[in-house]
Amino acid sequence: MTLKAFQDYYEDHSSQCYGCGRLNQHGLKIKSHWDGDESVCRFNPHPYHTAMAGYVYGGLIASVIDCHSTGTAAAYAYRQAGREQGTKPELRYVTASLHVDYIQPTPIDATMELRANIKEFKARKVIIQVTLTSSNRICAKGEVVAVLMPDDLKPNSAER
Amino acid sequence: MTLKAFQDYYEDHSSQCYGCGRLNQHGLKIKSHWDGDESVCRFNPHPYHTAMAGYVYGGLIASVIDCHSTGTAAAYAYRQAGREQGTKPELRYVTASLHVDYIQPTPIDATMELRANIKEFKARKVIIQVTLTSSNRICAKGEVVAVLMPDDLKPNSAER
Repeated sequence: MTLKAFQDYYEDHSSQCYGCGRLNQHGLKIKSHWDGDESVCRFNPHPYHTAMAGYVYGGLIASVIDCHSTGTAAAYAYRQAGREQGTKPELRYVTASLHVDYIQPTPIDATMELRANIKEFKARKVIIQVTLTSSNRICAKGEVVAVLMPDDLKPNSAER
Repeated sequence: MTLKAFQDYYEDHSSQCYGCGRLNQHGLKIKSHWDGDESVCRFNPHPYHTAMAGYVYGGLIASVIDCHSTGTAAAYAYRQAGREQGTKPELRYVTASLHVDYIQPTPIDATMELRANIKEFKARKVIIQVTLTSSNRICAKGEVVAVLMPDDLKPNSAER
């Protein structure tokens, strides 16, 4: 695992995300790293991120799956291109669809570990599969379809 | 539309949810009401609920779809049973799966309106479809499979 997370390479305009933006002071600051061919994200829910008492809110689980997946899509795209993350032009992905299966309740007082794998890769569309484990049990599975960020979502695109 | 939201009828132990719990001081306080045969939820994102600047974070959209759907499942189950919401035994649903299609970016500075319909109803399993509109444009669609809350998630079940 590298020390710098995928999300730490995002340019400033891509770093406003409530889920993973390093510049969003209110956000969750979700971080992803390579661990061999898989990417991994470890996330500690806050005590108030509850569904029922003792268990993690499903919307938070969806959020962590979302940002871990789009981050993984970008990191994988850089790998496929033989380029270092953070180099220009920026490769950044947004979510086209998100699916989560909640298999069993996720304990609120444990670290969630999410591992992502690439199911399908095309330059403009990536499908990512995620398994969320907590306290050694698989609690949720997710699948995200991520697409290359459209130019009209990129501010200052003239600078590119 | 009634003044009291579906979520305001939840018992205390069901009201800790980060998405919709009236007792969660840090939460989003998502509220749902009937509007004829549809249910509606209006939600104003905070300025920091951003994905890219100007647009709503997908994880927030997933969260609002989630709680609006499980609330709608419960309200519909009470209707089907010919019972008033809030009466015992409590009918409460949890999310088995969540799917969101992000159709176009959702503006951060407008009210999101979510309308839900029941696609399939069985007492223990409900499928809910949701359309999210903002600034008169359909921005996302969701589908949630909700299941009747298992007894082991209910604290104080001996009181029932």
